[in-house]
Amino acid sequence: MIARLCAHLSQSRRVVLGPGDDCAILATSPKRLLITIDSMVEGVHFKLEWCTAEMLGAKALAVNLSDIAAMGGSPTVCVINLAIRPGLDTRFFDELYRGLGKAAASAGVAVAGGNITRASELAITVALLGEVERQSMRRDSARPGDKIYVTGNVGDAALGLRILQGGIRATGSARNYLVNRFLQPAAQVAAGRKLARLKPPPAAVDISDGLWQDLGHVLDRSGVGAKVYSTAVPLSAAYRRVYGNSCDLALSGGDDYELLFCVHPRTSAAELSRRLGVKVSCIGEITREKRALLLSGTGEPAIVQTKGWDQLRVT
Amino acid sequence: MIARLCAHLSQSRRVVLGPGDDCAILATSPKRLLITIDSMVEGVHFKLEWCTAEMLGAKALAVNLSDIAAMGGSPTVCVINLAIRPGLDTRFFDELYRGLGKAAASAGVAVAGGNITRASELAITVALLGEVERQSMRRDSARPGDKIYVTGNVGDAALGLRILQGGIRATGSARNYLVNRFLQPAAQVAAGRKLARLKPPPAAVDISDGLWQDLGHVLDRSGVGAKVYSTAVPLSAAYRRVYGNSCDLALSGGDDYELLFCVHPRTSAAELSRRLGVKVSCIGEITREKRALLLSGTGEPAIVQTKGWDQLRVT
Repeated sequence: MIARLCAHLSQSRRVVLGPGDDCAILATSPKRLLITIDSMVEGVHFKLEWCTAEMLGAKALAVNLSDIAAMGGSPTVCVINLAIRPGLDTRFFDELYRGLGKAAASAGVAVAGGNITRASELAITVALLGEVERQSMRRDSARPGDKIYVTGNVGDAALGLRILQGGIRATGSARNYLVNRFLQPAAQVAAGRKLARLKPPPAAVDISDGLWQDLGHVLDRSGVGAKVYSTAVPLSAAYRRVYGNSCDLALSGGDDYELLFCVHPRTSAAELSRRLGVKVSCIGEITREKRALLLSGTGEPAIVQTKGWDQLRVT
Repeated sequence: MIARLCAHLSQSRRVVLGPGDDCAILATSPKRLLITIDSMVEGVHFKLEWCTAEMLGAKALAVNLSDIAAMGGSPTVCVINLAIRPGLDTRFFDELYRGLGKAAASAGVAVAGGNITRASELAITVALLGEVERQSMRRDSARPGDKIYVTGNVGDAALGLRILQGGIRATGSARNYLVNRFLQPAAQVAAGRKLARLKPPPAAVDISDGLWQDLGHVLDRSGVGAKVYSTAVPLSAAYRRVYGNSCDLALSGGDDYELLFCVHPRTSAAELSRRLGVKVSCIGEITREKRALLLSGTGEPAIVQTKGWDQLRVT
């Protein structure tokens, strides 16, 4: 079944033996390997009425690509576990695999195999391998004085999700843009790879769990704190039009497959943006005190947090 | 959460960076890589009243170890996706991780990371990496004249499952043995590694989907057929005591984490058993005609099959 469904998916010189055996065999590589696993569960991460099967397949890969991007790596090979429930036909799965296959081909990833299991809810789990140079980005290397940057805009996806759920109303192009940012995220793989070449490589994390929580992971692992300027958090025009200028959803929301990274202050935003080929915004700086401060427009602390971002947030 | 739960799990020199970052980083290796993924879903593969969380964790790894064994590889590193449902507490997951961790340590596998997601049913998905020499075992290399062997006994696990489900009654040591063969399978990793050193390496498959169906995969991929002698299928004393001498469940049942392999006829069963350190039984031979014959004790064909073993069997 997996062999049949994978038949039209991309192969590469990395795959010595693809789907259809007990394991896939991959060629040796002189580089260090990255591995990550992530899952999308119906009713938790998506509803079928929100999107096509093709979009689901593509997003199941994208959420993993984002983890590779956060390390500064190049994605190479994936395997898929598909938990299928009654009521979905072969056409649905063909479409899902087509979406995943297109996304894989466009990211240079070979789909090497997988497994199908019965279940009472649909779930797509992807384990993705990547390669990385000796110099990779990690969460534990932020230093006091580093400037904190994010790529792109933050909060669009969380707002798109709330629109899909019916909690927030929006129409027209703003709605389309925001919903699309949730349903069809693009991982910052190319930017991640370029970032990792900076010397020293930045501390980095993808902000799929929400900017504030993922920043917390960097602070925890690096043993530092941070000041974040709420007015510096990059919000899209659509976000502002639908939600206003409050960045609370942008900080807490999640589902943004953007990168947060911490670089030496000598590098300017303009220089970084030029090198990476994407918009970057400086949102604050790393401090010695082990606490996170969110400063409002007037410079008043809006949030002071010393722990709690590592609580169980299971999504 | 994964970092905390993985904290007591085995690490190894292969893991440059373990749980707690966006990806795990693995050291380079001069060998070819194997990758496989498998999942265990509550209500499909197990019920919580049948076993401890520790047993579940160990089995979730074992089913993947068996795929590595079938290629003749050595397992190295795994990542875990845990779909957790309401009603299970931290103690349950600690036990599950303890079971998985012990099984990993005993197989030389490092648990490099993972992901936790909410769901409405419990599911444990493991993606496992392994290493293999240039000479690995595949499903597509069986040749007419090869003898077909299986390791150990077949059908115990299928019978154990039916006892747990209440469809078949058994008591005492036979019950314990059969149920245990279902709940606590041991993958034939060492035997697989030794088999792969034969020249030429045997065609091989693990028979977790059932002997007859998995043999079918070898026949399909190799473009050959087979004769199987029903009286030669190795049944345990417990199987015979509870189920009698019929091998139908042993052929169709599944959940046996034994290996089926095809070797040149010059190698005897005794010689193979000595080399591998496990019992092996010759159950038939590979033929040129693309069909599978099951021969009864009197030599009459009991089953003649030319296709159909590759149907969708989703478990």
